[in-house]
This record gives sequence, structure tokens and C-alpha cells, in this order.
Amino acid sequence: MNAGVSTDIVNRSTADCSLWLSERAAHIETMLDQWIAPSPGTSELLHEAMRYAVLGGGKRIRAALVYAAAKACVGSPTVAVELATDRAAAAVELIHAYSLVHDDLPCMDNDVLRRGKPTVHIKFGEAMALLAGDALQPLAYELLSDMPISPALIVQATAMLARSSGAHGMAGGQAIDLLSVGKQLNRDALQNMHMLKTGALLMGSVALGGIVAGASSQQRQALDRYASAMGLAFQVVDDVLDVTADTTKLGKTAGKDAAENKPTYVSLLGLDEAIALSRQLHETATQAILPFGEPGRWLAGLADFIVLRDH
Amino acid sequence: MNAGVSTDIVNRSTADCSLWLSERAAHIETMLDQWIAPSPGTSELLHEAMRYAVLGGGKRIRAALVYAAAKACVGSPTVAVELATDRAAAAVELIHAYSLVHDDLPCMDNDVLRRGKPTVHIKFGEAMALLAGDALQPLAYELLSDMPISPALIVQATAMLARSSGAHGMAGGQAIDLLSVGKQLNRDALQNMHMLKTGALLMGSVALGGIVAGASSQQRQALDRYASAMGLAFQVVDDVLDVTADTTKLGKTAGKDAAENKPTYVSLLGLDEAIALSRQLHETATQAILPFGEPGRWLAGLADFIVLRDH
Repeated sequence: MNAGVSTDIVNRSTADCSLWLSERAAHIETMLDQWIAPSPGTSELLHEAMRYAVLGGGKRIRAALVYAAAKACVGSPTVAVELATDRAAAAVELIHAYSLVHDDLPCMDNDVLRRGKPTVHIKFGEAMALLAGDALQPLAYELLSDMPISPALIVQATAMLARSSGAHGMAGGQAIDLLSVGKQLNRDALQNMHMLKTGALLMGSVALGGIVAGASSQQRQALDRYASAMGLAFQVVDDVLDVTADTTKLGKTAGKDAAENKPTYVSLLGLDEAIALSRQLHETATQAILPFGEPGRWLAGLADFIVLRDH
Repeated sequence: MNAGVSTDIVNRSTADCSLWLSERAAHIETMLDQWIAPSPGTSELLHEAMRYAVLGGGKRIRAALVYAAAKACVGSPTVAVELATDRAAAAVELIHAYSLVHDDLPCMDNDVLRRGKPTVHIKFGEAMALLAGDALQPLAYELLSDMPISPALIVQATAMLARSSGAHGMAGGQAIDLLSVGKQLNRDALQNMHMLKTGALLMGSVALGGIVAGASSQQRQALDRYASAMGLAFQVVDDVLDVTADTTKLGKTAGKDAAENKPTYVSLLGLDEAIALSRQLHETATQAILPFGEPGRWLAGLADFIVLRDH
């Protein structure tokens, strides 16, 4: 196979994956739209803030990882597994959305722009933004508890989401990030921070896909290897894009990390080394999922998408 | 039975319940102390803030309701049920603690004093307080997922905690409360707000006790009737105490609701009517649990404790 053919295959596969990703993003949007709804006597404004935080944007990478991992483990899912996968995918998007709302608050990153729109606290006020974020968390667990699969798998999914997003996962990483502003972290410390802050929920998303699909332990191990590499790659690419992309494309303020003196892979390794690291992690991830064969194609496509994206 | 003997019995029962409540509070403190702990690579300061938010205070009414309800349904619980009850009791205390941390933030109630100590954001800063509250939520669900009872019951418990604390429960009530400052609510609207804001998690605590104990549907119905009455009574008594108690005893600023022009049962009904309502709800609650007989004694004791407390 010559280089030209290989590039062509990569391009075609990336285009396929972009289509699939758009279709999945539209699907999960419909599901989320249906599941974030007020009932009589509850606050409509709170639900409006929750919907504003969750709907109408985002690449839905986490939801896509749930779908892709489930698909890799069970090529032809039953209706029950499909319904469960929708709920698990929605759950990780709700957790991701709550973390963005709280991250944007004045006491944290004090961001006014997110996905090109005013942030939740700019639109609804700080108190309502705080509550909206708070209320998105239990909704995620409620959706998991409503999955039409065996209770034992639901319990595993609940534990996975809780660990991925809590003090030993995402929230723990955010705390380390908060305390590391202006500090020089070594590579291990930086990697640990990112594996918690961004990696944990990405890895949790892949693991959730395996759980809802009733993956074998061998399948789960392959998913874990893929997820560890991609969890880190995602952040390395984010750091690279913070330097190389412009604000319009990112939909958030570019160059913000450097301006705030936050440690990044680019500041630690330099731009070229950071890009090389992302390519190496991409290779590790794609190797890990070879045993899945064709059903693993969306996982492979997402690896391409995450590492080769320009925003 | 004459009035003198009846009063004596109530006094003795109240004293017994106070002892039991102290013992349960000490027990859940030990459990929480063990369960909120950093692991290698996670943030110690985040865990310190979480521990500060949860440990060393509070009456542990919600945990006690879990224990009392479980005890009412199964007089001699197995070790597994006891271990599960500890986790469920810890879970509701974690959710309660997170709600207090976020409630105290400057953008919400802006409180500097809680249980006689500086609030979490005063001690650790706003950003860390936000994260600590955020991280307490998933820990609650992680504990539920770790209960040594049937997965089907764990799923029920997860759904119950999520509904009690989310947009259709506690967080929803807080949103309504936020939007009702300075407004004149009618009695139905005030009751709806409180049944969500305070009642939902209290009711959820009672229901969780029933779930971990494997309660029959008849037992669950009796628990629900008790919990509805006590959920409301708790807030009515809180409103009464805001007027009649002093700051030292309350451990928080007394008279705050009136000063902030918040609608309360006292402002709506007058002090005497509010007290009469709390007594009437107490009667409803104690009637509901008569079928449990002697194993329901701590539920009865807690009803006395909640309505007759002076702080």
C-alpha cells in the first residue's frame, strides 16, 4: 500500500466518522431535549437554565464514545441495549455540561463565552447557574437507574460514572488544576492532573459503553487501553489548539491558558513534541482496538477525529 | 391514662430518642470519616474541604431517618442490611452537606457561619467550596452502588436519591425559593416550595431506609405517609425557630428569613397557627407508623424530636 492510498483511506474514514458523529450528536440532542423537562410544580426557569447548559451545541464526543464502545462490543445491539446506551450517553453529557457551567462561574474561570454563546451565569445569573449545574448531576444518575438492562450492570454503570466524575476523577482534577495555576508542574504531575480532569470522564464514557453492552472482561481491557490513550490525547490536542487555533473556531477564548500562566503540554514539551505525543497516543489507541475488527470502526474514527481536529 | 403519665412517657421516649440519635450521629460520623479520604494522586485539599463540609457537626436527622425507617421495616436486620443502611445514611448526609456548602456561597445566601463555624468558602475559598460540593454528590452515588444488597434494590435507591435531590426535588425547591424572595406566596405555593427544598430529601431518606430493608409495598406506603407529614413539619418548625430561637442555639443567623423578606409559614399563618400546624403534622406522622408497632419507635421518637426541638 503506498502513502497516497493510505491517506485516501484515512480521509474517507474521517469523513464517514464525521457523518456518524453528526448523526449521533443529533440523536443525543433529541434524547436530552426530551429528558430535561419540568413537571408541574417544579421550576421552569431552572429547567430553562439546564436546557441552555446542555442543548444546542458541543461536539458530543463523550456521548459518541459511549455509542462507539457499545457498538464495538456488540455489533447488533438489542433494542434494550440501544435504549440503555442512549441513557448512558446522555448521562455523561449531563455530567460534562454541569462541569462546564460550574467551571465558567466567576469564582472559577470567569468565562463569559462558551460554544459561541453567553455562559449560563451571564444569561441566568450566578445562583441559577450554580443550581442548574447541581441539578444536572442527579439527572444523570436518574437516567442510568432507568436503563432497561440488568440491575447488576446498572450498578456497575452508576459506580463508574460516580468514580469518573468525583474527587478521584474529574472534580479531583479540577481541584489540582485550580491549585497549580502559576506553578511549574513536572510531566507526571501534569499528566496526573489531566488524566483526572479531562481523561477520567472520557475513559468513563468508553467504559460505560462497554458496561451497557455487557462487554466481556477481555473487551473491557481493550476498551481501557484505548480510553487511557485517548483520555490523555484529548488534553494534549486541547493544549496544542489553545496555541494554534483562533477564538472563532474554538468557540472559546484562545490563548487563555498561556495568558493565565497555566501549565500545559505545550509549555512543558514545546509545540512539536506535544504534537508528536498526540500522534503516539493515537497509535496506541488504534492498536488497542484492533481485536474488535470492523465493529470497532467508530472507536477508530473517534481517535482520528480527536487527534486530527482543528477546534 | 391521665395527662401526667402521658407527659412522662413522652419525656422518657424523647430522652431515649436523644440518646439513640447521639449514638447514630457518632456512628455515621465514623463511617463518613472513613469514606471521605484522598487516594494517591488526588487532591488532599479538596478532600480536606469535603471533610470540613461533612464532618464534625449537624444533628444527622437525615441519616437517623434512614436508620429509623430501616429498623421499622426489619426489626432484626442482617449484617448486609446494616452495612447497606450505613451507606444509604451516609449518602443522604453527603447530599445534604453539598447543598449547604453551595447554599452558603456568596451568590446564594452569602452565609459566613454554619454550625457555629466559618462556612466552607470562608475557610477554603469559593472555588474550592464549589468543587467540594460538586464532589460530594458522586460520592453519595458511589456509596449506594457499593451496598451489599440486591442490585435491584440498589437501583431503586439510586433512583430515589436522584429524584429527591434533583430538579424535581431539592434543587428544584431551591430554585423556587431563590425566585420567591420578596414575593407573597400563597399557602399552596409555599408548601410546594418547601416540600421540594427540604421535604424531598427528608422523604427520600425515609424511603431509602425502607428500600435497603426490603420493605413491603404496604410498609413503603406507611413510610410515605409518615415522611410527607414530617417533611413539611420540619420546615414549619424551622420557620418558627427562625423567629423564636437565638443565633447561638441555632448555630446560624436567626431572624434571617424575615430580614430578607423571605416567605415563611410564620409570615403567612402567624406564629400560633404555624405552631398548631406543626403539631397537627406530628399527629399525622405518628398515626401513619402505628402499624409498625415497637420497631417503629425511632420513627416516632424522631417525629417528637423534629417537632419539639428548640434549635
